[in-house]
Amino acid sequence: IHDDLPCMDDDDMRRGRATTHVKYGEAQALLAGDALQTLAFELLSGKAGMEANVQLQWCQTLARAAGASGMCAGQALDIGSVGVALNQAQLEAMHAAKTGALITCALALGAQAALANDAQLVTLDAFGKCIGLAFQVVDDVLDVTADSQVLGKTAGKDAANDKPTYVALMGLQRAKQYAIDLHRKANQLLDDSGLQETRALRALAERVVARTY
Amino acid sequence: IHDDLPCMDDDDMRRGRATTHVKYGEAQALLAGDALQTLAFELLSGKAGMEANVQLQWCQTLARAAGASGMCAGQALDIGSVGVALNQAQLEAMHAAKTGALITCALALGAQAALANDAQLVTLDAFGKCIGLAFQVVDDVLDVTADSQVLGKTAGKDAANDKPTYVALMGLQRAKQYAIDLHRKANQLLDDSGLQETRALRALAERVVARTY
Repeated sequence: IHDDLPCMDDDDMRRGRATTHVKYGEAQALLAGDALQTLAFELLSGKAGMEANVQLQWCQTLARAAGASGMCAGQALDIGSVGVALNQAQLEAMHAAKTGALITCALALGAQAALANDAQLVTLDAFGKCIGLAFQVVDDVLDVTADSQVLGKTAGKDAANDKPTYVALMGLQRAKQYAIDLHRKANQLLDDSGLQETRALRALAERVVARTY
Repeated sequence: IHDDLPCMDDDDMRRGRATTHVKYGEAQALLAGDALQTLAFELLSGKAGMEANVQLQWCQTLARAAGASGMCAGQALDIGSVGVALNQAQLEAMHAAKTGALITCALALGAQAALANDAQLVTLDAFGKCIGLAFQVVDDVLDVTADSQVLGKTAGKDAANDKPTYVALMGLQRAKQYAIDLHRKANQLLDDSGLQETRALRALAERVVARTY
């Protein structure tokens, strides 16, 4: 909701529908985003039948991932890089914070609930970074190739806003190939991990790369 | 920070200084507010040497107080009531959520850390509601009586924005008296509570009512 606000990406459509501020006004959209953010912590800290220590670890992990060294930091870098030529390392650092932090956080929360060991946590973190990056590369590709109706939001906005993207950096074909390579790497991490049950993780990686919106 | 944004109260000054969005732009101000909100949960869930159960209770209490049935709800009501004539009960319900929820939350967090019993928690909740309301009555009085330099923010905004206030509802003199009555009631609650150490609480109540900004 906050990402769509006029002062951020200024998007009128999200998943094919009018964005919150378009429908309810900016003030209510701002408050809805604030309220949903606290709701995440209300749910994590109030989950019945879960160990207090695990729930506390959840709150800590999400707070770090969403905050000033995670998603908010990535978004602040993003805003600051409009019209700026970033190299691939800078672009990846931005996206690692902006998108990657919440994807690795989601994996970490599940792993913490399952009392995963350190090696498993390291694998899941690396896997999350891979698919987080793939998600962003695919996002940049779709902004160029999809039409707005399929995408469910306004296509072509990145170029119009002079934003650094993988397509701008490496061209469309190499960006598409990069997403495929990241997908392969993510699956390879699971192959090498010794994790027993990886179907849901592989389906997630597949969905991130194969999505059309 | 969010409260000062153009789509909310549109304030250029806060505590005598330029507000965040005036100095850094709206997008960075929005992100700074988001990041500070998660930081609260990072601190509460990461406090060293505290019982896991207490920390979890903290996160739950703050999330509820700040969210969709607390501060955000109060602020949403506030936005929706510009130009609307509220009676005293409606005005108090709005402020109980908007300001009262976070003040009672702060008291509850301290009480939880001290492993307060149920009777003590009830007293502190009632005390918090009293001084939360007093805070708002004083706010409305100051908006009329203080000048912007002492207040540290733009005075006279409520009337200019046609907002329902205690001064509009009951007149300046009765509003001032109401703040004094609430202060007395708050202290009476402490007198009757049997709580041993109430100096900090009484100082807080005093400060809320005697403040000039």
